[in-house]
Amino acid sequence: MLLHLSTWQEVEAYLKRSPAVIIPIGSTEQHGPTGLIGTDFICAEAIARAVGEKADALVTSTLTLGMAEHHTGFAGTISLKPSTLTLVIHDVVRSLAKHGFKRFFFLNGHGGNIAVLKNAFTEIANELPDTSFRLGNWWASNEIYKLVKELYGNQEGYHATPSEIAVTMYLYPDSIKNAPLSQSVNKDSRIYSPEEFRQRYPDGRMGSNPALAKVEHGKQLFELAVKELVSQYNDFLAEA
Amino acid sequence: MLLHLSTWQEVEAYLKRSPAVIIPIGSTEQHGPTGLIGTDFICAEAIARAVGEKADALVTSTLTLGMAEHHTGFAGTISLKPSTLTLVIHDVVRSLAKHGFKRFFFLNGHGGNIAVLKNAFTEIANELPDTSFRLGNWWASNEIYKLVKELYGNQEGYHATPSEIAVTMYLYPDSIKNAPLSQSVNKDSRIYSPEEFRQRYPDGRMGSNPALAKVEHGKQLFELAVKELVSQYNDFLAEA
Amino acid sequence: MLLHLSTWQEVEAYLKRSPAVIIPIGSTEQHGPTGLIGTDFICAEAIARAVGEKADALVTSTLTLGMAEHHTGFAGTISLKPSTLTLVIHDVVRSLAKHGFKRFFFLNGHGGNIAVLKNAFTEIANELPDTSFRLGNWWASNEIYKLVKELYGNQEGYHATPSEIAVTMYLYPDSIKNAPLSQSVNKDSRIYSPEEFRQRYPDGRMGSNPALAKVEHGKQLFELAVKELVSQYNDFLAEA
Amino acid sequence: MLLHLSTWQEVEAYLKRSPAVIIPIGSTEQHGPTGLIGTDFICAEAIARAVGEKADALVTSTLTLGMAEHHTGFAGTISLKPSTLTLVIHDVVRSLAKHGFKRFFFLNGHGGNIAVLKNAFTEIANELPDTSFRLGNWWASNEIYKLVKELYGNQEGYHATPSEIAVTMYLYPDSIKNAPLSQSVNKDSRIYSPEEFRQRYPDGRMGSNPALAKVEHGKQLFELAVKELVSQYNDFLAEA
Amino acid sequence: MLLHLSTWQEVEAYLKRSPAVIIPIGSTEQHGPTGLIGTDFICAEAIARAVGEKADALVTSTLTLGMAEHHTGFAGTISLKPSTLTLVIHDVVRSLAKHGFKRFFFLNGHGGNIAVLKNAFTEIANELPDTSFRLGNWWASNEIYKLVKELYGNQEGYHATPSEIAVTMYLYPDSIKNAPLSQSVNKDSRIYSPEEFRQRYPDGRMGSNPALAKVEHGKQLFELAVKELVSQYNDFLAEA
Amino acid sequence: MLLHLSTWQEVEAYLKRSPAVIIPIGSTEQHGPTGLIGTDFICAEAIARAVGEKADALVTSTLTLGMAEHHTGFAGTISLKPSTLTLVIHDVVRSLAKHGFKRFFFLNGHGGNIAVLKNAFTEIANELPDTSFRLGNWWASNEIYKLVKELYGNQEGYHATPSEIAVTMYLYPDSIKNAPLSQSVNKDSRIYSPEEFRQRYPDGRMGSNPALAKVEHGKQLFELAVKELVSQYNDFLAEA
Repeated sequence: MLLHLSTWQEVEAYLKRSPAVIIPIGSTEQHGPTGLIGTDFICAEAIARAVGEKADALVTSTLTLGMAEHHTGFAGTISLKPSTLTLVIHDVVRSLAKHGFKRFFFLNGHGGNIAVLKNAFTEIANELPDTSFRLGNWWASNEIYKLVKELYGNQEGYHATPSEIAVTMYLYPDSIKNAPLSQSVNKDSRIYSPEEFRQRYPDGRMGSNPALAKVEHGKQLFELAVKELVSQYNDFLAEA
Repeated sequence: MLLHLSTWQEVEAYLKRSPAVIIPIGSTEQHGPTGLIGTDFICAEAIARAVGEKADALVTSTLTLGMAEHHTGFAGTISLKPSTLTLVIHDVVRSLAKHGFKRFFFLNGHGGNIAVLKNAFTEIANELPDTSFRLGNWWASNEIYKLVKELYGNQEGYHATPSEIAVTMYLYPDSIKNAPLSQSVNKDSRIYSPEEFRQRYPDGRMGSNPALAKVEHGKQLFELAVKELVSQYNDFLAEA
Repeated sequence: MLLHLSTWQEVEAYLKRSPAVIIPIGSTEQHGPTGLIGTDFICAEAIARAVGEKADALVTSTLTLGMAEHHTGFAGTISLKPSTLTLVIHDVVRSLAKHGFKRFFFLNGHGGNIAVLKNAFTEIANELPDTSFRLGNWWASNEIYKLVKELYGNQEGYHATPSEIAVTMYLYPDSIKNAPLSQSVNKDSRIYSPEEFRQRYPDGRMGSNPALAKVEHGKQLFELAVKELVSQYNDFLAEA
Repeated sequence: MLLHLSTWQEVEAYLKRSPAVIIPIGSTEQHGPTGLIGTDFICAEAIARAVGEKADALVTSTLTLGMAEHHTGFAGTISLKPSTLTLVIHDVVRSLAKHGFKRFFFLNGHGGNIAVLKNAFTEIANELPDTSFRLGNWWASNEIYKLVKELYGNQEGYHATPSEIAVTMYLYPDSIKNAPLSQSVNKDSRIYSPEEFRQRYPDGRMGSNPALAKVEHGKQLFELAVKELVSQYNDFLAEA
Repeated sequence: MLLHLSTWQEVEAYLKRSPAVIIPIGSTEQHGPTGLIGTDFICAEAIARAVGEKADALVTSTLTLGMAEHHTGFAGTISLKPSTLTLVIHDVVRSLAKHGFKRFFFLNGHGGNIAVLKNAFTEIANELPDTSFRLGNWWASNEIYKLVKELYGNQEGYHATPSEIAVTMYLYPDSIKNAPLSQSVNKDSRIYSPEEFRQRYPDGRMGSNPALAKVEHGKQLFELAVKELVSQYNDFLAEA
Repeated sequence: MLLHLSTWQEVEAYLKRSPAVIIPIGSTEQHGPTGLIGTDFICAEAIARAVGEKADALVTSTLTLGMAEHHTGFAGTISLKPSTLTLVIHDVVRSLAKHGFKRFFFLNGHGGNIAVLKNAFTEIANELPDTSFRLGNWWASNEIYKLVKELYGNQEGYHATPSEIAVTMYLYPDSIKNAPLSQSVNKDSRIYSPEEFRQRYPDGRMGSNPALAKVEHGKQLFELAVKELVSQYNDFLAEA
């Protein structure tokens, strides 16, 4: 059930059977010479909607802007400061808690959001003690790690990875770009200031080889992620 | 050209031919018993993308959350406080200005955002004197007013209006809901605190009769809005 | 009844007969080569006090500083940022609401304050649901528009207008300055960053010819504004 | 020279001969059963204007709202939080510094503003290293202390004092109220939370006997304060 | 009783016999060529712990960072902005008030903290009306003033004073440095912007001659300060 | 070299040979019935000072307050909100960067600080692009994990762990308390709101058995942590 295609009366009806909601969150940031700027939110949104369908859960519209300060040296990246994103999370939860929502499952597509979300959960739990939170990072379950290892070995890297490119290829087969990738790529995984980040990772990739991505990998990864996150969501619901 | 389906290198190339960008902004708020919670951002997004195509302009992902505090008495409404939305606008512009964007055209689908956007523009212009702003409210041109008057007369009202419902019907023909509308509706147009708002406008409509909306009206309104906004965008570009 | 010339016991007595208060707000900003920097608050203060007398209403001291960022390119302009002015409004209402005031009538003399006031009202109504607000812009009623049209036609312009200069001439007949006005004046009404504003409107006027102002116009305008605003104030009091 | 009755061109001319400005600041707060709510800003404004005349200095409009949280238990008190007042001071200085003002003389009528002003000066000096500040509290020079001691001895007290009441009597002879004062008054001078403040100082006075105030005392005090502050202002101007 | 060496159960037991707590606060800032950067918090901490022992009071860990903006022109100074320090004070009190603490005695070692602490107390008292505050500046009692006068006369000065150097010598006899002091020292006591401060007080001293400090003076001053502050603390506890 | 026992001239001399500084940070929070409220900062401080000695590095005074909101249900816990702690980190770095420090090594004793520190580093790197950061969590190296596993197996738990208790026993042999521990302990590791945290972890421990801690373990852990962190610090210095 998609919030933006529902009426308020349908949401009121949903609240009679469930106090939980799924909030997809990603980022709008460079993903190397071939990857889409929307990669992180595209993945989170598609996975969240599939999870919502399977788990009969309400899914809000996607928070397409995340904390991507370190990528702002590349054109097209839009970043919210940690403090701004915290306020956005706060307002989203505050609005929905007013109607009776109590369990907030953030389905996340971007590593840079994790610290911000944790801080935000802490601050909100103080103010609204009835709320509880779960953070589901789609790429971060053992099953997904295993599959990624198998598909790409040590060419997965840390940013603009073949796994996330594969998922977007599956979702937007016509949008992935053909662009030359330099042979060598910096294998570091540290985050630097925007200026230094661009200098150290000149084409935006961090140790990854996105040329390995294939549509059928994307399908596999997508379906596995949905399965894992349905299970995480159901565990969250089942908690005392 | 859609930002989220582009690479950073494509954005760099775009910046060589244009310093302007279109940012669709709407709201996630109740639209009466039959209207979609996403109405405001659905309209802004679809119109913005069509304008982008016709005017060869870059269009960012949509700001789906607006200032909707007065609607928070209805389930499913998600509102950003004026101060939070101001910071979001600020971060969006700051990020893009860093890459060389100078002209920001906000294509807006929600009246409640107008005062916030105006304040944000003032604060940002102080800090980034090279930027300029234009606010395009899709429903607010003389041509649109004339058409709306013709189609709905004084049953247009102020919220959950047949015109915006018609546009969403055109875009999502299967999603508009059938729900009973009480015969009488409060004709007031004042905004109150969330509690009083719900009391005065018990089903969420403000003086409107959305039952008049038809898919073909939606098509007409959509196409006229696109035409008007292409022209506003081009005027903005042409300014000294 | 003027707050600053009253004792707290007199205010307590007033609260037994009325929960409403009038708060004059203006700006401290350049008004062209002949107009006073205090024009906006001088008008608001004088009109507010006359309304207070006729309507038996309490009038606070005047908020002399408004949102005038775009005028800060001219010496003597003092501007509060939108965010600062919002906090000031908030503190004023919070203080008075603590004593039992519930209806806040802001009598405004400056267009640049409008968006800020609207946002502030929204935020405060959320926190103090018992409060209600009305914004009375002295220059913005049909009767005043008609009179201004009649007196000045299209030479009224948008800033440092003959109508506001006339009101200050009526109030401070000796203070209006004699200074040369260039023959031509930019007829635009857009607001720009401070630097660009000064460049486009080099002597501070926006399309106006303040040389048309006369003391007797000021008297007419003042008396009409008072009449209109007494009526707006009484309507506000009468609302359910 | 009064800022609000000047044009921007007159201010530009003034800046050629002086980089200094006087900013009167007071408070809007209860002053016992007989004292005016505007006492603190009325005194600061009148003294500042007289100083301005004698010292040929520009005087801004008066900041009528100060930090008066502890008085908010009494009807009619309007207080800015310390953080809000800090931002206001900041915006005032930032605006004027942009035009070339460098020396800011705050002529203060309210003890509760002192700590806020000190903090604000510290923060602003960091940001605008060219600015310098002086705080002139009209009641706090040796000469004034001596005169007050002579006139009222230990009946001066700490709030709603006969000396400040006398100055307002001199300025508004018809406004001081007749109201019964209880014989005994709490001689404490501590500041408490608003609730406890009202309980400990039930009629608003702190150890004072305002019934001793006389118009001729007000004249004496006013003239002495003006003399002292002209001298402080000139010392400030003369500093390297 | 030292908070950091206690368990939560011991604190719960303490709260049954006392609602008061001592919070030492100092600063981390240059103290001339011979004085320690930690001087202000070293003094506050040692005195607070001795007071705690004599008065059977709980003492928290020391706030070692204070408001020292004007000293930031000298290497090693760490300063919290007034607004940051206010939030820290707020969080400390909020945390402890949650457990039942009601009386907060700040034992202060740095003049620059005074205005910030006063503002913070005001804001907190509004939010937590059950709390009360006392500020104990160890150097600021009549007895201490008398002793300092006797020991150092007019060579005490205003910063990096022989009295505070003596106390740290007594506490850390091996840490005070030998470094040449210029013969002449600026006798001014004004605070300036960091840049101007360093220019006017080139070695960091303000009118002081720390070479006069002796360990035995430190012992005398320390013991007298403890005696005075035990008495202030007990007065605070005894208040109705 | 300890900052608080140095003079500003010694710090200036240090900056000629190194641009790096170690900042110990911990927390003031309950550590079960036997553990000290200062555990986290006591460990960080002692380890940091030993690292500083071995690596010839400057060590600041310890940030004793961390983000401990979830522990505020237990008496004696003092927590800074994430937003407050972020500002403190910011001010510390801003102050030191002004003097020429460029590399900031935070030696951390508390898991709850990690997300806050990461966000703070991001925000500061944007503003001060010359700075770089390293986070050294003393308990989080492979060698330490191995030793802890060996000593305590699955009785280590997540809070008030035998390993941290052992380190404080080694440092303060007389301060660890004897108090009964209930036989069973909740093995969960989730963080909840303060109220729910106390309910789920009634004596403050999270799955740990601190009764296993021994002074000689503390010595072993301490020495290993120092060795590991000296090496991390040197790696940080050596980075290009």
